[in-house]
Amino acid sequence: MKKVYFDNAATTAMDDRVIDAMLPFMRSHYGNPSSVHSHGLEVRSAIEKSRKKVAELLNASPSEIFFTSGGTEADNTALVCGVESHGITHAITSPIEHHAVLHTLEVLAKKGTITLSLLNVNNQGEVDLDQLENLLKAHPKSLVSLMHANNEIGNLNDLDHIGSLSKEYGAFFHSDTVQTVGHFIHDLKNLPVDAIVAGGHKFHGPKGSGFLFVRKDKKIHPFIHGGAQERNMRGGTENVIGIIGIAKALELAYEDMSGHRSQIEKVKKHFIEKLTSEIPGVEFNGLSTDFERSLYTVLNVSLPPSDSNHGMLLFNLDLSGISASGGSACSSGATVGSHVLRALHHNSERDSVRFSFSRFNTLEEVDYTVDKLKELYSVEA
Amino acid sequence: MKKVYFDNAATTAMDDRVIDAMLPFMRSHYGNPSSVHSHGLEVRSAIEKSRKKVAELLNASPSEIFFTSGGTEADNTALVCGVESHGITHAITSPIEHHAVLHTLEVLAKKGTITLSLLNVNNQGEVDLDQLENLLKAHPKSLVSLMHANNEIGNLNDLDHIGSLSKEYGAFFHSDTVQTVGHFIHDLKNLPVDAIVAGGHKFHGPKGSGFLFVRKDKKIHPFIHGGAQERNMRGGTENVIGIIGIAKALELAYEDMSGHRSQIEKVKKHFIEKLTSEIPGVEFNGLSTDFERSLYTVLNVSLPPSDSNHGMLLFNLDLSGISASGGSACSSGATVGSHVLRALHHNSERDSVRFSFSRFNTLEEVDYTVDKLKELYSVEA
Ligand SMILES: Cc1ncc(COP(=O)(O)O)c(C=O)c1O
Ligand SMILES: Cc1ncc(COP(=O)(O)O)c(C=O)c1O
Repeated sequence: MKKVYFDNAATTAMDDRVIDAMLPFMRSHYGNPSSVHSHGLEVRSAIEKSRKKVAELLNASPSEIFFTSGGTEADNTALVCGVESHGITHAITSPIEHHAVLHTLEVLAKKGTITLSLLNVNNQGEVDLDQLENLLKAHPKSLVSLMHANNEIGNLNDLDHIGSLSKEYGAFFHSDTVQTVGHFIHDLKNLPVDAIVAGGHKFHGPKGSGFLFVRKDKKIHPFIHGGAQERNMRGGTENVIGIIGIAKALELAYEDMSGHRSQIEKVKKHFIEKLTSEIPGVEFNGLSTDFERSLYTVLNVSLPPSDSNHGMLLFNLDLSGISASGGSACSSGATVGSHVLRALHHNSERDSVRFSFSRFNTLEEVDYTVDKLKELYSVEA
Repeated sequence: MKKVYFDNAATTAMDDRVIDAMLPFMRSHYGNPSSVHSHGLEVRSAIEKSRKKVAELLNASPSEIFFTSGGTEADNTALVCGVESHGITHAITSPIEHHAVLHTLEVLAKKGTITLSLLNVNNQGEVDLDQLENLLKAHPKSLVSLMHANNEIGNLNDLDHIGSLSKEYGAFFHSDTVQTVGHFIHDLKNLPVDAIVAGGHKFHGPKGSGFLFVRKDKKIHPFIHGGAQERNMRGGTENVIGIIGIAKALELAYEDMSGHRSQIEKVKKHFIEKLTSEIPGVEFNGLSTDFERSLYTVLNVSLPPSDSNHGMLLFNLDLSGISASGGSACSSGATVGSHVLRALHHNSERDSVRFSFSRFNTLEEVDYTVDKLKELYSVEA
């Protein structure tokens, strides 16, 4: 059976060149980077080269980059330790953040460490930034956590605008950039953010790799305590192959980002056109058809009510070899379970599916998928 | 130059069979285990097989095993969340625990979450268990954290005894077993522990892999918040290759544990005999010459005062291609920096070096190393 992988916002296939970069650190360079002997030093040096590479690409300083076990740990670190280290008692976020942010802040609120304000979002998933400013006026020195791009509907937030507001009111601004690192340029010397995060597996690197950027003048203390690794910012023997892998993957992403982008945009554009012309009643969630204001990698499609597909759409697609998602890979995959679509008051009689792309996808895969959707929705050929 | 790797307590070389088990999950099985489509399900199934394998080998239930990014994260989780989930206000540990335990508990104490009692240790590194019982009498329902084996001097604690005391006084007993998992049998249905931890890189698995065992009736809440991974116990896309790798490494460790043990014991025994007969004034730290009460993988050697080697011993060994350690790999490597030797009131004029072994070491490497030590200490041939 044909296999089509349209779930690249959940995770991506590793690039062979990333694997090749990791292999020597599996096969021969096995020292502990904290050891002072030659076995350790060669590995320490490779880690620091990776850190330097990541910092260079993001226009940050190596001392601002901390490797983690993924985007989720990086989010937890920024939020839990951002709040503690800066004596923050109020946080502002939105109901359509990833659970790595939402659940972490909810736990802090439940413990009484912070009070939590959720911004309104409209039914396109746009966050109310006037409300943000009012909240910041009322609670200066808050923590603001708003994602760069939403992983389900693809909406992009204006980090410059949010960051400037945060700066104006002395807030700590964390942005969950897991969906944009490796796909968009981040110029951290100029972008007004205090902390951003990445997960290597979203851009053809290994799962279980990630990093946290924390701006020099907004230092936070460690989340995981132990040895002196990561300049005392994260105890634990380093995931060496993960670090080598994420740095290599980011390097490859930057090598031809605009090439990848235009190729993927073609796929997305073709998908929108085909669906619009061939599936009557199709709609798109969030801003995902707005190429300026959404991820080029994500298209969230809302299909007309259909008894035979209701609650079964992903399953039916899977039977045709098509892997897509109902939203965050971290939820059960069922569209009903999406807290994002719920916040957008999505009509629960319609089924939604997120198709998400990488540079390995083709126009032909789009045609195959739309054909299958036509069959599922009994559209006459 | 000859290369001798005697730093296996810091980290080990990966077994080729572990690498072979991981490779398919780098090259082709790249789905996100949380995805409901076939790309995801094949990976989910591999993870659950790994969990089942680990549970079987340790005589635990799969629902008691949680994969983490390493021993340090697992220790942090057990301690921070053990304290919070069970409303614990007092913890008991020893000054020779790994920093993953010590620093984590110190931070909780500094925050005022707990008060912390440190047990006395004698100059052999033996922990005062009468004092433990007295403290437990005074503070029932404490958290007790005492390691199975010390990573620097190799001393083994009697987990049965400590666990029974903990049980008697209703305490939560966590043991840092990072140095013993994969080297000793743990029968968790019968061993009276509530939580233990492992790091895959200590037994020929990948760095950045680990797991936490928490007994069913002592459930704790998550440390890292996010998606529903690890049965809601650890948010974050799984380090799939790390999980496959640690389970395979544990399987291989159990396949011939007694064979590895007797081989490594020969290396250690030969080392002790050669040093004793050839280096006048040599001593051994902790219990590391007691084969019943110490790790067979660790020998901590205290060398006589020597101007030319003082503070330089590891460096001098490294120049001869010999990788060894001054203690925990997480410290600077300098023997002066060892909090363990300090707690044992080790004579600071003497230099100590930890040699630690794996099944890949040979008697001939011991001979080479003792010859080099003789040169360094100007012992006439
Ligand atoms: C006794 C002990 N505990 C904890 C750790 C930390 O484990 P990891 O390196 O996997 O974070 C180590 C390893 O350095 C150790 O030896
Ligand atoms: C927006 C967003 N934040 C955080 C995460 C979590 O990152 P990771 O999977 O590396 O833990 C994801 C990935 O699922 C994501 O899409």
